[in-house]
Amino acid sequence: MTYEVKSLNEECGLFGIWGHPQASQVTYFGLHSLQHRGQEGAGILANQAGTLRRHRGLGLVSEVFKHQEDLEALTGQSAIGHVRYATAGGASINNVQPFLFDFFDMQLGLAHNGNLTNTQSLKRELEAQGAIFASSSDTEILMHLIRRSQKETLLAKIKEALNQVKGGFAYLIMAEDKLIAALDPNGFRPLSIGRMKNGAWVVSSETCAFEVVGADWIEDVKPGELVIIDDQGIQHDRYTDDTQLSICSMEYVYFARPDSVINGVNVHAARKKMGRRLAQEAKIEADIVVGVPNSSLSAASGYAEESGLPYEMGLIKNQYTQRTFIQPTQELREQGVRMKLSAVSSIVRNKRVVMVDDSIVRGTTSRRIVQLLRDAGAAEVHVAIASPPLKYPCFFGIDIQNRSELIAANHSNEEICEIIGADSLTFLSLEGLIEGVGMETDAPNGGLCVAYFDGKYPIPLYDYEERYLESLAEKTSFY
Amino acid sequence: MTYEVKSLNEECGLFGIWGHPQASQVTYFGLHSLQHRGQEGAGILANQAGTLRRHRGLGLVSEVFKHQEDLEALTGQSAIGHVRYATAGGASINNVQPFLFDFFDMQLGLAHNGNLTNTQSLKRELEAQGAIFASSSDTEILMHLIRRSQKETLLAKIKEALNQVKGGFAYLIMAEDKLIAALDPNGFRPLSIGRMKNGAWVVSSETCAFEVVGADWIEDVKPGELVIIDDQGIQHDRYTDDTQLSICSMEYVYFARPDSVINGVNVHAARKKMGRRLAQEAKIEADIVVGVPNSSLSAASGYAEESGLPYEMGLIKNQYTQRTFIQPTQELREQGVRMKLSAVSSIVRNKRVVMVDDSIVRGTTSRRIVQLLRDAGAAEVHVAIASPPLKYPCFFGIDIQNRSELIAANHSNEEICEIIGADSLTFLSLEGLIEGVGMETDAPNGGLCVAYFDGKYPIPLYDYEERYLESLAEKTSFY
Amino acid sequence: MTYEVKSLNEECGLFGIWGHPQASQVTYFGLHSLQHRGQEGAGILANQAGTLRRHRGLGLVSEVFKHQEDLEALTGQSAIGHVRYATAGGASINNVQPFLFDFFDMQLGLAHNGNLTNTQSLKRELEAQGAIFASSSDTEILMHLIRRSQKETLLAKIKEALNQVKGGFAYLIMAEDKLIAALDPNGFRPLSIGRMKNGAWVVSSETCAFEVVGADWIEDVKPGELVIIDDQGIQHDRYTDDTQLSICSMEYVYFARPDSVINGVNVHAARKKMGRRLAQEAKIEADIVVGVPNSSLSAASGYAEESGLPYEMGLIKNQYTQRTFIQPTQELREQGVRMKLSAVSSIVRNKRVVMVDDSIVRGTTSRRIVQLLRDAGAAEVHVAIASPPLKYPCFFGIDIQNRSELIAANHSNEEICEIIGADSLTFLSLEGLIEGVGMETDAPNGGLCVAYFDGKYPIPLYDYEERYLESLAEKTSFY
Amino acid sequence: MTYEVKSLNEECGLFGIWGHPQASQVTYFGLHSLQHRGQEGAGILANQAGTLRRHRGLGLVSEVFKHQEDLEALTGQSAIGHVRYATAGGASINNVQPFLFDFFDMQLGLAHNGNLTNTQSLKRELEAQGAIFASSSDTEILMHLIRRSQKETLLAKIKEALNQVKGGFAYLIMAEDKLIAALDPNGFRPLSIGRMKNGAWVVSSETCAFEVVGADWIEDVKPGELVIIDDQGIQHDRYTDDTQLSICSMEYVYFARPDSVINGVNVHAARKKMGRRLAQEAKIEADIVVGVPNSSLSAASGYAEESGLPYEMGLIKNQYTQRTFIQPTQELREQGVRMKLSAVSSIVRNKRVVMVDDSIVRGTTSRRIVQLLRDAGAAEVHVAIASPPLKYPCFFGIDIQNRSELIAANHSNEEICEIIGADSLTFLSLEGLIEGVGMETDAPNGGLCVAYFDGKYPIPLYDYEERYLESLAEKTSFY
Repeated sequence: MTYEVKSLNEECGLFGIWGHPQASQVTYFGLHSLQHRGQEGAGILANQAGTLRRHRGLGLVSEVFKHQEDLEALTGQSAIGHVRYATAGGASINNVQPFLFDFFDMQLGLAHNGNLTNTQSLKRELEAQGAIFASSSDTEILMHLIRRSQKETLLAKIKEALNQVKGGFAYLIMAEDKLIAALDPNGFRPLSIGRMKNGAWVVSSETCAFEVVGADWIEDVKPGELVIIDDQGIQHDRYTDDTQLSICSMEYVYFARPDSVINGVNVHAARKKMGRRLAQEAKIEADIVVGVPNSSLSAASGYAEESGLPYEMGLIKNQYTQRTFIQPTQELREQGVRMKLSAVSSIVRNKRVVMVDDSIVRGTTSRRIVQLLRDAGAAEVHVAIASPPLKYPCFFGIDIQNRSELIAANHSNEEICEIIGADSLTFLSLEGLIEGVGMETDAPNGGLCVAYFDGKYPIPLYDYEERYLESLAEKTSFY
Repeated sequence: MTYEVKSLNEECGLFGIWGHPQASQVTYFGLHSLQHRGQEGAGILANQAGTLRRHRGLGLVSEVFKHQEDLEALTGQSAIGHVRYATAGGASINNVQPFLFDFFDMQLGLAHNGNLTNTQSLKRELEAQGAIFASSSDTEILMHLIRRSQKETLLAKIKEALNQVKGGFAYLIMAEDKLIAALDPNGFRPLSIGRMKNGAWVVSSETCAFEVVGADWIEDVKPGELVIIDDQGIQHDRYTDDTQLSICSMEYVYFARPDSVINGVNVHAARKKMGRRLAQEAKIEADIVVGVPNSSLSAASGYAEESGLPYEMGLIKNQYTQRTFIQPTQELREQGVRMKLSAVSSIVRNKRVVMVDDSIVRGTTSRRIVQLLRDAGAAEVHVAIASPPLKYPCFFGIDIQNRSELIAANHSNEEICEIIGADSLTFLSLEGLIEGVGMETDAPNGGLCVAYFDGKYPIPLYDYEERYLESLAEKTSFY
Repeated sequence: MTYEVKSLNEECGLFGIWGHPQASQVTYFGLHSLQHRGQEGAGILANQAGTLRRHRGLGLVSEVFKHQEDLEALTGQSAIGHVRYATAGGASINNVQPFLFDFFDMQLGLAHNGNLTNTQSLKRELEAQGAIFASSSDTEILMHLIRRSQKETLLAKIKEALNQVKGGFAYLIMAEDKLIAALDPNGFRPLSIGRMKNGAWVVSSETCAFEVVGADWIEDVKPGELVIIDDQGIQHDRYTDDTQLSICSMEYVYFARPDSVINGVNVHAARKKMGRRLAQEAKIEADIVVGVPNSSLSAASGYAEESGLPYEMGLIKNQYTQRTFIQPTQELREQGVRMKLSAVSSIVRNKRVVMVDDSIVRGTTSRRIVQLLRDAGAAEVHVAIASPPLKYPCFFGIDIQNRSELIAANHSNEEICEIIGADSLTFLSLEGLIEGVGMETDAPNGGLCVAYFDGKYPIPLYDYEERYLESLAEKTSFY
Repeated sequence: MTYEVKSLNEECGLFGIWGHPQASQVTYFGLHSLQHRGQEGAGILANQAGTLRRHRGLGLVSEVFKHQEDLEALTGQSAIGHVRYATAGGASINNVQPFLFDFFDMQLGLAHNGNLTNTQSLKRELEAQGAIFASSSDTEILMHLIRRSQKETLLAKIKEALNQVKGGFAYLIMAEDKLIAALDPNGFRPLSIGRMKNGAWVVSSETCAFEVVGADWIEDVKPGELVIIDDQGIQHDRYTDDTQLSICSMEYVYFARPDSVINGVNVHAARKKMGRRLAQEAKIEADIVVGVPNSSLSAASGYAEESGLPYEMGLIKNQYTQRTFIQPTQELREQGVRMKLSAVSSIVRNKRVVMVDDSIVRGTTSRRIVQLLRDAGAAEVHVAIASPPLKYPCFFGIDIQNRSELIAANHSNEEICEIIGADSLTFLSLEGLIEGVGMETDAPNGGLCVAYFDGKYPIPLYDYEERYLESLAEKTSFY
């Protein structure tokens, strides 16, 4: 009955479509482009003239939908899909979304990206009233609230339920005659609306899916908003006016695909600007700039352009490491056996290298890469991180480790530099991050949630409050 | 009983080790780094004090060795491993290497990278003498020749057999008390020797495996050479002196990993130089340079540096397409649904783009990418290919399509440019390629086999001769 | 929202144990001996000092528990298990039992054998109050009723819930500190208590499991009874006194294993007596008696002994047909290709055969076996059925087909005889059945439910009532 | 390079067909009825107008051919199939038959039931000449001999080869234009020819397959005979005249299905007669006769009829034990947990039981069953075995254990009786066995090989000779 300040949280991806004769196929390709948001499980729920059917499973989208028949069985003109993040704990098929509910009076489908902060208290309250939960996911709670609402219409019930859940959430709800998208009052997670050439509406966690399915971006779902799509078209509604944009800054830093546009800002461009800012702030004397593949390539090229240093491919990532279960033993690792990254000696030998990465979590990976570069002959390795130090956990939907596991929560920059064995270590400043993203908004922090950097959460933490306060007192030494 | 001028050929990867307590584990990681050379199947054969054991299977290395037990069962101080290329036809476990032969008087293991050109006549001759072949692979032939040799020692038998097979081959042979590596008289395929810190010897198709297992490069196996490794150390022998280096130029252009060094030339550096040469030859007026991920990134960055144009990430590759079986229907493809590559509108919109790719085979992919860029708003798309036009098949170990499927064998540059819908099309010149690689050698064509470009094969074609001549007369129209 | 008068019903098997250090292992072997009661799915839920864990899956017990680890993970001193019947419709893992419920205040496990008759109305009522069901099984309902009960103790809640569900049910409920077994007021399904030599209590649908796990039979659970087992021992309680024994007669006729003892009557002995009664009633002139393997062997040997005719092995069953998916095409079947049964020509040729079977459902199988015997040279084939004609569906837990598919519901004996191609056809009389079983009881029909034969259901049909009345009006012609 | 006097031997099943439009389907059903002869692997090779194709795999026929497509791919008018026995050692797909050989000048298929005795010397000789074997099976040898023969025609080559192999063999050879069946000079293994109503010829190890596929028995293949079937019909040829019938007596005792007829004798009838003879020889005072299911039921019913004692179902076999991997631990076994057999207390309690079994190998099983019966309350248990004591290994195709593991090779009847805990123990006499089978023949031992009982092998043992003589000196104590 206890919970920890850590990875209950999930980073996931949503895709929905209304009005396309091959709705589930399009959803498949949409989810495929969102695969980076979750690799533990995937599912598609299709609506065939009011009858909802679903296929889901553990693994990558391509593993869950191995056979053409799996998709072909999901006939219908609309669908929602979900990819689920690989959390540390045991995966259960029961938690793979979309959820499908068969009631005597209707069917409903539900998919969720984000993390609620009042799950425990709501669940306890509902169970005390006789509710039975089928999964350990926090997603199911919304459905219990909807079904217990005394309001007249489904929409009114949903709005009432949305006002009861707290935290970060983007929901897709498939009813028999409509598709509903809803976003939390802070817009912690991205959610956009697009349209295909044949008129079908699509909803996606990231706009990269629009490129993939040939749709045009129409708009972003706003904090506190409810978008209802049916055969008559699209309608906008709100369940609350008490909103304030604080979109997760880590979407720009790390999560989102570089070709996505979030709140008007292209992710690759934002990263490149952060890289430029980082170069300005760091002012490192060096010979070449090397990005850690794949997520840091944009920032590294920005750094290179701003600094005037050549950008070189000094680190190579093995493209076949996705599903590799056998890892080198400690003994082999000490002998230099490694799997994912290789340093290219002929490039880095005798060079002063600026190694650009997007962030540092535990420091272990950075330490290994620095060592790789040194083993390959680099004369100096200067680590430049295109985001501020991660010091606080996230409660709104991303899996940022336990505070005790965040190296920057426990060590000074100098200590970290020593731990990872770098010649110098530079983090981007918080202002650099905010200006790098440069959203057009009046919201605080340029519309970003930066709580992982400064510990100032934009809303109360509810069930997590107490444990969080305790965690601030903890301090764990590393290495 | 017929054969075609095409994909019997195989591009594969070899790894071997002698003298390491965890030989099969090291081989696993070595093969993993050679995964790009073959994804159809993999196997490891370990030598435990003279007893050979093997595990092999269809799929990626990580799929074949899913369980730690699979590796742990392969005890012993030496091992050889193989990754096999995904040919079009039906895969059979029987063809997955290394092969293991249990004779009454000895055990032998065998792995092969390359393609023999006198397979059919040798096989027919051997079968007429009562030989029975267990696989459809051409690899088995060497073993029949070895076993039928009347020479005294195993080494003498092997040397006799090596003089009977023609074409391209790199072999690893595991005997009970030694590991033998041999290369064909032209050195069509790369094969290098390295050494680990604990003294263990390693052999690999590419040096990238040495980085991964923590070994240092010692030397390359030379054309016509036989390297024998046993507990006494390493010995060099030759089975022929009639040699001439003509290493496959496509290794530099496309196959090899950028961090590998072949015959003293780093592959990334060679590609970058080819990109530079291409820029000099092409002289295109444009705004940005975009490489087709992943293989063309080195050439594209060379092009960008030489031309002074900014290198931009205008194309994004979905990293999760490795094992995706469901493809968009024709209908969905026409609606713009695509899986592997996305163009980043915010980068390419209204830009004159130089799209750098490594090669054009059928032209289909190029046409799609050009269209992608145009759909994303590119003002102009200039295609620049960092190798000469592919016009002739390969018979020495790479899977270059049937002549009738090579667009450049059937169309002029202008026609190809029109077919792929580009604003202009430039191929690197043959000299550009040869100088780009820039090996230190007196051999013709700078030590490269460039027959796919000029049709001049460095050795006779044997069984393929007749069919090849016929193929020259054929001409297939495209599109 | 409609339901049919047919195979929602399930025949399943239950096994439970309290107080054994290897509780889940013993449950595995217990379930294995109950495998004939259900082959669709299986599961075991173990209680480790108050923590409940479960493993379940589709298929046979040996398929669900393939690996020793699956069982070893289920540590604890008590456990419940379930085997599920293969219904026609699509199997879903969600419906495989035992169910496991994780509440904020407790965990509960639940397994069910039987069929409720007021499922639809209860479910509708509960959903109207906001309940959400995770499965389409009727088993889950009991848990909703328990959790919504306002009674103080768990036991009182359970008793209240048991009074709300109607129909046939044997339940096993695993709480953190006790194991509860409950039987419906009519005792439609068998449920017995046994004890192992080390003092562990076991509960099983059939006593054959006691032989297998080395336990002694102690008592049968009585209609309306609740048996509570905990570390203090065993207690007996009742949730109703309005009971009347009407155990399913098909358990004796067909379902149960011959070595089980139900309500004091050994199943093999009962079948043998029914065979004897059948011989007395049938008085057929013949040469040999042949039983249809495997279920009719007891009845056939009783028939043989009573009639004085020799019992011969004239039909052989292929023991490997369990999991065979490929069936002969119609064409091959007409050519005489058959899989499961063969007639032994050297035994039946020119003989007048009494073919003894336990029951006739659709008549198709009987017709085939008669034909088999004739093809093998039998001079005459007299079919003798060791139970009365099946004319009415069951609503209390066995899968007796739709009335329209019961041949005896639609045809006279003479018609059936002609349809199956027999020389004569004899069914056992209802009195013969009741006296053959010969339970010691004052209950009507000798304590048996014989509604499938006479249409007189011992209790109201609730939700099935209306549909049942309609079904009586239907008549379907066969063949 | 050593071999043991034991289970290299294999008991397998063959089925072939010529001239049926659904040849592979019929073969599937034929193999299915021969499943009792081998459960390790299965395969079918079909001949489509001269092109041979094959599908094979590990496991039961129904597992190897899970999908209708597996069979449908095997088009053609003729086919051969094989089921392979589960030997103790590691199973390899390489050894699963039929073998398919692709030569430059022809394709050949081969399937084998039996065991050769000069495998080692032939293999050594062939390898010394350069032959390479693809499997560890002795079956492949015949093909090497065929291919090395200097004779003109395929038939002449085959005849020459058949004269070189020694031991027990029934072969099916599929050539492009004919199907050839051949039997060893002693006819150790059964092989029969049948014909379907549409004129198709079938060949099978047992006639039970004819019942299953609707074929009539035509003749048995004779020792030393070669039967050639092609579109012109059937021809008989011989490769030797030095023959003498000595069919394996264990086929009658244990292996064959009771509905098969071998050399004119129905197996069930033979077993019943052996049971009758056993009753005459044993003369046990008892109350009931109980057969050990399933193989001993025929003998037990013969015993019952002759003795006048009632035959009762005192032992029940769980029908679901085929593929059960988890076995009770020693600890649970001591507590009485058992899986496969249960004794029916209500039948055996206080009875003097004659327990009839077909044979005793190690004695372990008998000991367990005696204990089972005692635990269930049997007053006395008299074990009657319907064959003589097994004292010597078999080298001609059945897997009779190592002499050191045969209890009767190491203990007197009195000792065995004590070891298995019986009140008395009776074996059938050798004359009883021979007369029980009662073949019409002048051959010694009534045409049976009874070497396992008397150590007199009908032909020399070749490679096994030396080891066999040594084994006679060994004596191992049991328990």
